[in-house]
Amino acid sequence: MIVVTAQNFIDLNKLNEFKELSEELIRKTLNENGCIEYEVFRDKDNKELFCFVEKWKSKKDLEKHFESEHFKKIVPKIGKIKIKKDIVNVYEKFN
Amino acid sequence: MIVVTAQNFIDLNKLNEFKELSEELIRKTLNENGCIEYEVFRDKDNKELFCFVEKWKSKKDLEKHFESEHFKKIVPKIGKIKIKKDIVNVYEKFN
Repeated sequence: MIVVTAQNFIDLNKLNEFKELSEELIRKTLNENGCIEYEVFRDKDNKELFCFVEKWKSKKDLEKHFESEHFKKIVPKIGKIKIKKDIVNVYEKFN
Repeated sequence: MIVVTAQNFIDLNKLNEFKELSEELIRKTLNENGCIEYEVFRDKDNKELFCFVEKWKSKKDLEKHFESEHFKKIVPKIGKIKIKKDIVNVYEKFN
């Protein structure tokens, strides 16, 4: 299993847009092969920070996700409402 | 629901010790009230980075976890085998 955390820092003036985009991304991604979990959370202290927490069956499934139509359509739109570069970590099961 | 990511940077010479300590912490924490998920993952690119991904029913359950005997016993031991300060984020469900 692969776990991804993708921390996105969003312009709070564009919160409604982020809500719509992230909801569409989540809905479509959950239908992908190999997607176990795909959710977005908001940092309790830093309200601009939103973290996607994703679980994938395999690296191959994650790579296919990056090539999906919805990823290539929605992620650049989210890019336009970010206030700084995102922080992405890809993890593997440890114990 | 509360989601916590706790990124720990571990001395690779102490990997066996971290494995034992994290296994004990996970086993005991999963028995706590309000603990939905509690797992540890290893960064694919930075092998010193281990991330605990935790889901809790409520903030109160998370606060009780910090006061648990196993947390107060094990976490300081993990502290001694870290190579730098951990990064902890507490998240709430967004959509």
